[in-house]
Amino acid sequence: MTEQAGMQQDSVGAFVPGPRTERAGASEGPLAGLTFAVKDLYDTAGDVTGYGNPDWARTHPPATADAAAVTALLEAGARLVGKTKTVELAYGLTGENVWHGTPLNPAAPDRFPGGSSCGSAAAVAAGLADIAMGSDTGGSVRIPASYCGIYGIRPSWGAVSLVGAMPLGPSYDTAGWFAARAAVLRRAGEVLLPPGGEGPLGPLLKVQEAWVNAEPATAAALAGGLEAAEAVLGPVLCVHVAPEGLETFYERFRCAQAAEAWASLGPWIEATNPAFGPGVKERFAAAKAMDPAKAAAGRAFRRVVQARLHRLLGGGAVLVYPTSPLPAPLLGATQAEQNAVRERTMGVTAIAGLAGLPEVTIPAGKVEGAPVGLSLVAAPGRDRALLALAEKVAAAAGLPA
Amino acid sequence: MTEQAGMQQDSVGAFVPGPRTERAGASEGPLAGLTFAVKDLYDTAGDVTGYGNPDWARTHPPATADAAAVTALLEAGARLVGKTKTVELAYGLTGENVWHGTPLNPAAPDRFPGGSSCGSAAAVAAGLADIAMGSDTGGSVRIPASYCGIYGIRPSWGAVSLVGAMPLGPSYDTAGWFAARAAVLRRAGEVLLPPGGEGPLGPLLKVQEAWVNAEPATAAALAGGLEAAEAVLGPVLCVHVAPEGLETFYERFRCAQAAEAWASLGPWIEATNPAFGPGVKERFAAAKAMDPAKAAAGRAFRRVVQARLHRLLGGGAVLVYPTSPLPAPLLGATQAEQNAVRERTMGVTAIAGLAGLPEVTIPAGKVEGAPVGLSLVAAPGRDRALLALAEKVAAAAGLPA
Repeated sequence: MTEQAGMQQDSVGAFVPGPRTERAGASEGPLAGLTFAVKDLYDTAGDVTGYGNPDWARTHPPATADAAAVTALLEAGARLVGKTKTVELAYGLTGENVWHGTPLNPAAPDRFPGGSSCGSAAAVAAGLADIAMGSDTGGSVRIPASYCGIYGIRPSWGAVSLVGAMPLGPSYDTAGWFAARAAVLRRAGEVLLPPGGEGPLGPLLKVQEAWVNAEPATAAALAGGLEAAEAVLGPVLCVHVAPEGLETFYERFRCAQAAEAWASLGPWIEATNPAFGPGVKERFAAAKAMDPAKAAAGRAFRRVVQARLHRLLGGGAVLVYPTSPLPAPLLGATQAEQNAVRERTMGVTAIAGLAGLPEVTIPAGKVEGAPVGLSLVAAPGRDRALLALAEKVAAAAGLPA
Repeated sequence: MTEQAGMQQDSVGAFVPGPRTERAGASEGPLAGLTFAVKDLYDTAGDVTGYGNPDWARTHPPATADAAAVTALLEAGARLVGKTKTVELAYGLTGENVWHGTPLNPAAPDRFPGGSSCGSAAAVAAGLADIAMGSDTGGSVRIPASYCGIYGIRPSWGAVSLVGAMPLGPSYDTAGWFAARAAVLRRAGEVLLPPGGEGPLGPLLKVQEAWVNAEPATAAALAGGLEAAEAVLGPVLCVHVAPEGLETFYERFRCAQAAEAWASLGPWIEATNPAFGPGVKERFAAAKAMDPAKAAAGRAFRRVVQARLHRLLGGGAVLVYPTSPLPAPLLGATQAEQNAVRERTMGVTAIAGLAGLPEVTIPAGKVEGAPVGLSLVAAPGRDRALLALAEKVAAAAGLPA
C-alpha cells in the first residue's frame, strides 16, 4: 500500500490489496474538499479492474479510461482515495471475500459489512472517504449501507452512468453511492444524476409486507425514523404492494437476474473456469442452470410490478420500510444461515429492483448495537427529490446532517 | 327575452329575466365555436349585475367593464349567450330563487338544481351553453354540478381571477365553471387557469369519512366511477382527513365564512334592508350575529386543515369521495329538511373549501334516476393536472368525453 501524505491508514480492510489508486480532483467544483472511493468494478485508467476475483484480474488488461462516474466525481473536485473491495463479480450480499479478506464492519465489528459493495460501505463508515461508489443490482448498496449504519442510494435504473463499470445483471444494475451524511449523499447526486427530478413528494406509504417481514426488533428500532418521515410528509398510510408475497418477489427477481448474470459473465466463467469463494460458486452454477422459462416468467413479473408501482408512485408518493429485515449476520453465520437471510432480504430489495425505483436508506436505528436502515423509495426519475427528502427526514430524526 | 337567430329558448329558466346578454367571442381562439353563460354575479359591461336579488339590482349601477373571466372566455373565441340565475347573494346550496324563479334541474325535474350557481348548472345541463361560469365558496359549483349530472370545477383558491365578480367570503370564493363534457371543462381551464400545474398525479386516496357520510345508495352508485379512477391511478388507499369529524369541518367553515359574508355584504344589507327569500334571510341574520371568537376559531382551524392536506397532497396524491352525500332534495323539501342536507353536504365540501384545494366533480352515478357526482381533489395549483385526470377517469368510466 502506498502511504502518501494525508492518505489514511486502511483500518478496516476496505481497499483492495496493493498500491492505493489515488487521483486529485479538479481544483474547483461542487465537491471540492471531499474524498471518494470506488468499488473495484469501476474502471480507473491504468489499473486492472479486479472485480473481486484474482482470475478476473489475471485475465483482464488495465483499463484505458476512467469510468464515467469516476470522471464526474473528479471533475466536480472530489479526490479519489482508493478502489474498494467487492464480493466476487458482485454476486453476493454479505460482503465476504476470501481472496482479499472481508472488510470489517466499522459499526459492528463482529458482523458482516454487507455486499457486494462491502469495501465502499466500510470505507465510508470508517471515515476513510466522504463518498464511495458502489453498484446495486439486487441490494448491493442498500444492504451494506443498512449494515454499516450509513446513507446509501440505489438510483433509478438508468439514471447514473455505468459506462466503465463491470456488468452483473444489466437491466437491474445501478450505480449507487454511500455517504456518512445525508447532505453529502445529496451533493454527490447533484453531480451524478441527470437534471430534473426535484419537486414535492408525498404522501408517505408504509409497505405492510416489508414491515411484517422485518424482525420485530428491527421494526421497533426504526419507529423513530418512521416518525421523522411522518413529521416531514404527514401521517403514513398503509399499502400492500406485493399481494403475491415477498417470497414471489425474491424468486422472480432471482431467476431473471441469474439469467442476465450468466449472459453477462458466463462466457468468461466457461472460458476461464475461475476459482470462486463459498456461495459465489453456487450462485453462478445455479445461474448457468437457470430454466429459461423461469427467467422469462421473472421478466414478465417485472413488467407487472413496474406498472403497479409506477402507477402508485407516479404522482409523488413515497414508500417507507426497513431496508433490511434484520441487522448484518454475525461473522460466524453458516452458508445456510446466510442464504436464509439473503432470501428474506431480497424479497424486500426486489421491490425497487424489479420496478427500477430509486431507494435511499437512512441509518435510522440500531438493534443490539448493530445498525439497521430505513428506506425511502420514490417513482423513477425522482432521485433528486428523494435525496432532498432524505436530508429532511435525517434532520427530523436528529441524525448527523 | 331577446330572441336572436341561433339563441336557444330558455327551456329550464336558467337565465335571468329580461333581455338576454349576448356577445360574440374573438373570431379565432381555442374556444371558438363554443358558447358560454355567466352567473349573474360576474359583471358584463353595460348590464346591472343582479346578484339574485331585486334590491341589489335596484341599488347598483350598470357595470362599466366585463369581469376578467368573461374577457378571457370571449378572447378565447367563446360566445356569451346569457347571464344565469343565482341564489340571492350566492348564499345557499339548493338553487331556490323566489324572485326570479328557481331553475329547473334538467336531469331531475322534481328536484332542486343546486345553488348558488343554479342557473349556470341548469344552462349547461339543458344544453343551452357549452361552458358556464359559476362561483364556489362553500360548494356552489360542486353541488349544482352533482345535482344536475354535469362536470364542475372549484379551482384552487386564487387560481382564477374574480375581478369583476361580487364577493361572498373572499378568502373562500373561487371562480369555477361547468361543462357537460370533461374535455370542454379542461379546455376552458386552459384559458382561465394560470400556466403550470400539469404533471402526474397519484396515488388515489379514498376519504373514509366522506364515503361513510354519503347515503349508501349514493356510495353504491359511485362504485363504477371509483373503479374508473382506480383504472387510471391504481388501487385506492384509504385515508382519514377529518379526525375531528365532518360536523366540525362544517361548523368551523360556516363560522369563518359567515363572518366574511357579513364583512362583505353587511354594510349594504344594513343600509338597504333588502327583502330576502326563505333561508337566505336567516343565514344573513346568523352571519350578523356571528360570535367573533367562533369566526377566529374557524380561521385557526382552517390553518390546521390547510397544513394537514397540503402535506398529504403535496406530492400529487388525489382524494376521491362523493361530491354530495345524496342527490338533490325534492322540490317540496321543507327548510328544515334543506338545512339538514346543507349541513351534511357542507361537511364534505368544506374539505376543499377550508384547504383551498381544487376539486373536480364527475357525473359518475345516479340514484333513483337523480345524478350524483364523484369528486377528485388535488393539491393547490394542480388544477390543470386534475382536469386532465378527470378527462381520463371519465373516459375509463364510459362517460361522454
